[in-house]
Amino acid sequence: MSKAPTERTRVKRVNENAKYDEATIHAILDAQPMCTVGYVFNGTPYVTPTLQWREGNHIYWHGSAASRMLEACEETQVCVNVTVFDGMVMARSAFEHSCNYRSVMAFGIARKVVDRDQKEARLKAMVEQLFPGRWDMLRAMKEKELKATTILGLELNEVSAKVRSGGPIDDEDDYGLPIWAGVIPLQMVALPAVDDPRTLAGLVAPEHVGKFKIG
Amino acid sequence: MSKAPTERTRVKRVNENAKYDEATIHAILDAQPMCTVGYVFNGTPYVTPTLQWREGNHIYWHGSAASRMLEACEETQVCVNVTVFDGMVMARSAFEHSCNYRSVMAFGIARKVVDRDQKEARLKAMVEQLFPGRWDMLRAMKEKELKATTILGLELNEVSAKVRSGGPIDDEDDYGLPIWAGVIPLQMVALPAVDDPRTLAGLVAPEHVGKFKIG
Repeated sequence: MSKAPTERTRVKRVNENAKYDEATIHAILDAQPMCTVGYVFNGTPYVTPTLQWREGNHIYWHGSAASRMLEACEETQVCVNVTVFDGMVMARSAFEHSCNYRSVMAFGIARKVVDRDQKEARLKAMVEQLFPGRWDMLRAMKEKELKATTILGLELNEVSAKVRSGGPIDDEDDYGLPIWAGVIPLQMVALPAVDDPRTLAGLVAPEHVGKFKIG
Repeated sequence: MSKAPTERTRVKRVNENAKYDEATIHAILDAQPMCTVGYVFNGTPYVTPTLQWREGNHIYWHGSAASRMLEACEETQVCVNVTVFDGMVMARSAFEHSCNYRSVMAFGIARKVVDRDQKEARLKAMVEQLFPGRWDMLRAMKEKELKATTILGLELNEVSAKVRSGGPIDDEDDYGLPIWAGVIPLQMVALPAVDDPRTLAGLVAPEHVGKFKIG
């Protein structure tokens, strides 16, 4: 996939930072499960954070079947944003300060996953992508849990990425000024896991816990 | 401030996690400059990441005067979300897996800052909040830079926070299962600053660079 931008996905500002290729878009979606979902409810915009996961050319998110966000998104236009915040870019003028980031915006109609087996397969994929091997270690999903869960999916047909990296770009005249400029890189770090106090004696965290990373 | 929730800000799901007090809301906004702004353009929702900063009971965000996002948001209903992603919560069943987070949703009409001096004051406040003492170290702002910048503000009158912390809460029957459960804490870390290669010899990063933190 390297789709031509649509009116909604064509990056207007600093468009040399725009990316429309599948590899870049997938890598950003796979790096950061936290997303925000934008939707319109009663005529006004809402933005709700939730976790997304990708399978092929779709992303999914889920929650309680009673969720207002999921109800409001179902079968309607949404915009999903995933942003990895990579750093503060400090220039010699306030104007040229910036951020480094990797961001994806995906537009389209959110579709509900209705088939029971498809729902379970999607949830398994979510768990396995975050924590390989975990699904089969867990207590099996109950039918009432599946019923209480709504999953929405969005096909990645209208999607763009915007990426900024590197140092500040100052006005040529400003490079001679005695002002420090540079980048503060930012990174999401997974700290050592904390056992639940009721974890049975002798149980240690599986390998997927120590290997978990974001960004 | 500890405003009663409105129809839009009343947290519906897991409402024991809802917070409406000013101290909680301000602390989250002050901890994480990255936000997403939700707005409606041509009838469909958009979500755009940008930096926000808070002054008193307002948040602000800014960008190029040519920005589609800023133009579309001006004098219309927006929803701004700030989310600090604090951890993965791993339970004994897939269903009880969760995230720890601190999140704010603010609704209202975005107002453009039009007065020249007010614009400069807002930009100074942004720089000073991120990097105390930096504004006066920088090359002074040019009039054309001020003109090329649009700043939008949102009064925090319709706002809620939702916070989850702590370990997994499993079904009572599941605590006896030999399944590891716990939390992987996540933290945004500022790595050592990288000097711009054109920084003049002998210049070192000011104190505000080393002290910068997020989350």
